[in-house]
Amino acid sequence: MRNVKIIVEYDGTRYAGWQRQKSDATIQQQIEQAVCAITSVERATVHGSGRTDAGVHAIGQVANFHTESAIPIGSFPPALNTHLPEDIVVTDAAEMDAEFHARFSAVSKRYRYTIARRRHPSPVERLYTLCVPDRLDLQAMTAAAAVLVGEHDFSAFASKSAEDQNNVRQIQALDLIEEDPHLLIDVRANGFLYNMVRTIAGTLLEVGRGKVAAARVEEILSSGARAMAGPTAPAKGLCLMEVAY
Amino acid sequence: MRNVKIIVEYDGTRYAGWQRQKSDATIQQQIEQAVCAITSVERATVHGSGRTDAGVHAIGQVANFHTESAIPIGSFPPALNTHLPEDIVVTDAAEMDAEFHARFSAVSKRYRYTIARRRHPSPVERLYTLCVPDRLDLQAMTAAAAVLVGEHDFSAFASKSAEDQNNVRQIQALDLIEEDPHLLIDVRANGFLYNMVRTIAGTLLEVGRGKVAAARVEEILSSGARAMAGPTAPAKGLCLMEVAY
Repeated sequence: MRNVKIIVEYDGTRYAGWQRQKSDATIQQQIEQAVCAITSVERATVHGSGRTDAGVHAIGQVANFHTESAIPIGSFPPALNTHLPEDIVVTDAAEMDAEFHARFSAVSKRYRYTIARRRHPSPVERLYTLCVPDRLDLQAMTAAAAVLVGEHDFSAFASKSAEDQNNVRQIQALDLIEEDPHLLIDVRANGFLYNMVRTIAGTLLEVGRGKVAAARVEEILSSGARAMAGPTAPAKGLCLMEVAY
Repeated sequence: MRNVKIIVEYDGTRYAGWQRQKSDATIQQQIEQAVCAITSVERATVHGSGRTDAGVHAIGQVANFHTESAIPIGSFPPALNTHLPEDIVVTDAAEMDAEFHARFSAVSKRYRYTIARRRHPSPVERLYTLCVPDRLDLQAMTAAAAVLVGEHDFSAFASKSAEDQNNVRQIQALDLIEEDPHLLIDVRANGFLYNMVRTIAGTLLEVGRGKVAAARVEEILSSGARAMAGPTAPAKGLCLMEVAY
């Protein structure tokens, strides 16, 4: 049995997220259909590195699937793409050992949240950025971001987390990058809780607007209380950039 | 009667172009409806600086309309935007003299054609760029572009032009800008023939691919024959950047 790893880019706008569902169209389901079509099987399971929410995009999602097909490895991307809609593109494929699993083998992931610092939302960017017309204190945001780097219990930055769940994660890097008119929030961690990047983005924005003092972020973090942190920023600004193994 | 100039950004994907039509949704029609709604009139005519085709975008389209409304000038953009879909945004408004006309007063316009130099089309850019995986000879493209700068009869680069029409236009600047992975073709001229920028882009791409020698572009231009030039590049890569008065 071959174990095929693929790199996937997608525009999440039209989908109810990554994970297969009974009714709504999802990215996993679209890729599984394409795998079935090209490998002539009735059912295929494609494991993603993680679920992305409805409206979240990816340029470096990683997934794997097992197949008996003899298709040359380099032919998987073009073959899959002919069966995928144009908002999902497989950009690469590689042959992996039997042990490789896109989710369990992942060492870290990097997400990017894109803020458009404009007075009016740009029509051509509206599905991929959050427009923030307010003046932002980048120094305060940078100070607040520094507090979150490292190994912490991120319960305060997670939605719907189970009481008994281990919410300790390690943020390896949290960078604010100015690419005028965009402000990028890049977060690399060994794992992410549900809505964690979007809650970090929402909280840093509150700090940038001066509604939350940078010094309070330490308090929010140690409280473990979701109600203390800022709002969950909209899904459309979020993109899964890369997964490291 | 006030004469109001507005700057408009739009994502042309969903529209049958700028110009009002009987059946399909157009950008002009959407803006005219918004003007009617906020100024409480039954009919309004909004003059654009020019028509953009179906699928063509704009970040600096200019239009004007006359109104008896007493709305403060600065309130026009937010008021219009509440009546516009999110793929059309009015970013600015200014009070003009009676003589000003968005089309007839225009001195020059600048369009940008965006090529994504990628192996696979990017899902999040698919509606705004043309993906060109081929190797491109930028030196040859630059040499070919230089031939087109200046005052020429651009009949060879226009679709559907009437025989007796004056097809002389002046290209003031034609720049190839590398912004990895994008290649931008920026064209500023005192006016454009139908499909002129898209035909220039299509021809420069043929030169870049080595299918047409840069030296032949002079010949194509002087032939005045549309069949000599390259194909019309797809609408989605084109954006109206600014109009000068």
